[in-house]
Amino acid sequence: MGALHEGHLSLARLAAAENSEVFVSIYVNPTQFGVHEDLDSYPVTWDRDMTMLNKLDDELKAGGKGRITTIFAPSTKIMYPTLPPDSTIPGAGSFVNITPLATLLEGKSRPVFFRGVATVCMKLFNIVEPDRVYFGQKDVQQSVIIKRMVTDFHLNTEVRVGATKREEDGLAMSSRNVYLGERRRKAGIVLSQVLRAAEAAYKMGKKDRDDILMFAWYVINDRIMEQDGLAETERARFEIDYISLADPNTLEEVQTVNESKGAVLSGAIKMLPLKAVVDGEKLGLGDDKVPVRLIDNIVLEPSRK
Amino acid sequence: MGALHEGHLSLARLAAAENSEVFVSIYVNPTQFGVHEDLDSYPVTWDRDMTMLNKLDDELKAGGKGRITTIFAPSTKIMYPTLPPDSTIPGAGSFVNITPLATLLEGKSRPVFFRGVATVCMKLFNIVEPDRVYFGQKDVQQSVIIKRMVTDFHLNTEVRVGATKREEDGLAMSSRNVYLGERRRKAGIVLSQVLRAAEAAYKMGKKDRDDILMFAWYVINDRIMEQDGLAETERARFEIDYISLADPNTLEEVQTVNESKGAVLSGAIKMLPLKAVVDGEKLGLGDDKVPVRLIDNIVLEPSRK
Repeated sequence: MGALHEGHLSLARLAAAENSEVFVSIYVNPTQFGVHEDLDSYPVTWDRDMTMLNKLDDELKAGGKGRITTIFAPSTKIMYPTLPPDSTIPGAGSFVNITPLATLLEGKSRPVFFRGVATVCMKLFNIVEPDRVYFGQKDVQQSVIIKRMVTDFHLNTEVRVGATKREEDGLAMSSRNVYLGERRRKAGIVLSQVLRAAEAAYKMGKKDRDDILMFAWYVINDRIMEQDGLAETERARFEIDYISLADPNTLEEVQTVNESKGAVLSGAIKMLPLKAVVDGEKLGLGDDKVPVRLIDNIVLEPSRK
Repeated sequence: MGALHEGHLSLARLAAAENSEVFVSIYVNPTQFGVHEDLDSYPVTWDRDMTMLNKLDDELKAGGKGRITTIFAPSTKIMYPTLPPDSTIPGAGSFVNITPLATLLEGKSRPVFFRGVATVCMKLFNIVEPDRVYFGQKDVQQSVIIKRMVTDFHLNTEVRVGATKREEDGLAMSSRNVYLGERRRKAGIVLSQVLRAAEAAYKMGKKDRDDILMFAWYVINDRIMEQDGLAETERARFEIDYISLADPNTLEEVQTVNESKGAVLSGAIKMLPLKAVVDGEKLGLGDDKVPVRLIDNIVLEPSRK
């Protein structure tokens, strides 16, 4: 969807390491934004994206591996040739639905999101006929749904998932991070810290849901109290949407981690708008007036194969 | 779905005339049968089907055209690899939905039907990767939906539609006709006669919906009165599900036929179970105790291109 960052580039690098030709698709897909969601405010940074991709291709040229041969940036009339794209439920048009996967986690607060994602990916795969497709681990539910779609519809491609790229302090890279000013940016690392805490419990041998998530909730409560103690000009409040411990293939919540399957720890938080700012404060795009939803996850690897 | 008749063979012949290799798929797809529909009673006639296809292939061999190279008869675990097939609404699984097309006409009384058809065809096309796919004109809504799916999802195949095969008296061939005993079989020609009457009005220059469908309803009322006048041992009652005059691409009802697009005249009737039979009467499969739904259609060609 453009607004490229190091996470996207790492996927293109991975693709170039495994293939001779890399197609990069850039398309802000309207059907994955709900009627009241932020399609119009989604950052579109075409010139900057092209500069980044050209620079990356120079790097690939030097490395003697695959190259970026195509930027595929279709019009909406190409992607939705018959009816105009529709983000309502049920929605007029031709859609792929992957249920119940699409209704869990992110799907709970974004009911049309994965319908839009699966649909546009099906079209994209049919147009490009790629040997392999590359998705980022950060959007874990997306990659699980695309894998399911490839299996269930017998699509002739291989789904590859690249590791989540993070800032130095652990915040998962996201096109949405540009909306975070310094204060919200700093507070936003809570999500990765929460997931790390729960992961640590798993690594110490905990297998039961409560034993693992207890550590996550401990960190959450600690950070909430920390914010409560600050003045409005220093505070960056957040709300927890969900913290999940789920089966890696079905994304259904698990009570105990199956040692031969492992699990996915994931979460979503909403960084709330700042109530008061101070002169000279470093603000994000949109002046920190809009809530920003952040997601992150960690794969708990099987401890026994 | 097996239970082959001359209509299916005509499609294989058409395919062999246009291609070197013909794949025949035989699969009774569970997701297109509603929970209360007749999946279990659908006629499965494997040995007879194979005999017919072998005979056809001998004919093709002699004709020097394409040949039947593959019979593709997958198990349900191949077609639905992850979750068991589900015919409920909303239905757990991976599905293609083509709306509003799938909700019109046949979709009104069979709400999961075209979801099942589109889904299984998407899988089939991905497995086979055919240059061309062949569907019968008799299932006009199916072919319109498959064409829409191919366009909207950029599937790399061409949809070809073969003419409806008919019995000598005009009844459209269907696997379901075996459920019609002599009496219901004879009365069942009402549908094709009704459509022919309306087509005649169009050919005489009528363009308005009422002027065209008036002829259809005239024939319907005439046949209903005819049945009313018969004794229960002679009577074969039917109910009209719909008579439609629709746009050929959207299948939305039209008030006036657009001369450059033409229209599709279609209908569905339900042959009701016989209330009383006489000794020695020629009965259909199931002894004419189950209602049998018949569909048919006629394309009104554009009168001006």
